[in-house]
Amino acid sequence: MSFTHAILALVAERRSYGYELVQRFEERVGPAWRLSPSAVYPALDQLERGALVTSSARHGGTRRSPRIVYAATSAGRAALDAWQSAPPTQPEPVRSELHLRLAFAQHGHRAALAAQLEAHARACEQLLARYPRASTSAGAALVDAAVLGRLRAELAWLAHARAQLATGG
Amino acid sequence: MSFTHAILALVAERRSYGYELVQRFEERVGPAWRLSPSAVYPALDQLERGALVTSSARHGGTRRSPRIVYAATSAGRAALDAWQSAPPTQPEPVRSELHLRLAFAQHGHRAALAAQLEAHARACEQLLARYPRASTSAGAALVDAAVLGRLRAELAWLAHARAQLATGG
Repeated sequence: MSFTHAILALVAERRSYGYELVQRFEERVGPAWRLSPSAVYPALDQLERGALVTSSARHGGTRRSPRIVYAATSAGRAALDAWQSAPPTQPEPVRSELHLRLAFAQHGHRAALAAQLEAHARACEQLLARYPRASTSAGAALVDAAVLGRLRAELAWLAHARAQLATGG
Repeated sequence: MSFTHAILALVAERRSYGYELVQRFEERVGPAWRLSPSAVYPALDQLERGALVTSSARHGGTRRSPRIVYAATSAGRAALDAWQSAPPTQPEPVRSELHLRLAFAQHGHRAALAAQLEAHARACEQLLARYPRASTSAGAALVDAAVLGRLRAELAWLAHARAQLATGG
């Protein structure tokens, strides 16, 4: 998963500091990714060690300490092109904690499972309500379409699974 | 992700050795999980350190070296019940390398992206052809239904994305 390349792509679009990159990543890729903000800093460190970005301190504003601002190098831009042109990756595995619980459930777990399916459906509906976003690019609109399709399929399946569980199927 | 609990559940159903667990996991959960066989042994070690399983050497057959066979302890069975009854987990994030490449693509990457979308569609179709399986349980049938819904949604989205890319959308 080339999360690091996505951070590099943002920096190549324009110089940014860490927190700004968190916001810009979420804007571009969307909330379904569930970015952990703390993931951005190791990615920046890795990019800097590889000489794909450089950092500099920027003083100013009302802040006492300077902000560390990152910019892409020409090697960084070449790495981005290589990433976009790299051979296709395999589709991600389908792995879900809920699938495991269902696959190994005993009769006595039925009530607990029903509650878990309901909670999953609620969480999917909440996420669905945040889509589609006012997209910033054609690429982001395609990502939104993928997430929407996935969430709708998940909700349809959850409704089916809850009905099966309710009828003892 | 409680992959370790799934291994524990298999051992609780009946004593097994490592390679047998790989096969039984794949049979139960299906190929979309893309189990890495090497993931089973650390899970068994972790379960044994926690006294949730015990291991013993079994000699016999045509093998020179004994097989290590695992069995669940009563603490292991209690841990399984606790897992099934635990509060619902959040649905997994939607994270895909292809989404990132699309979100950050420049015009010049269009041909490479089209090839990647096509390869993804082929891989999804190959996986789809392996579903639904002759399911061993109602739970496994529900997992299959989830995977089928996911793959069909993904294929519909890939067709949309390829059309968008072809028309310059």
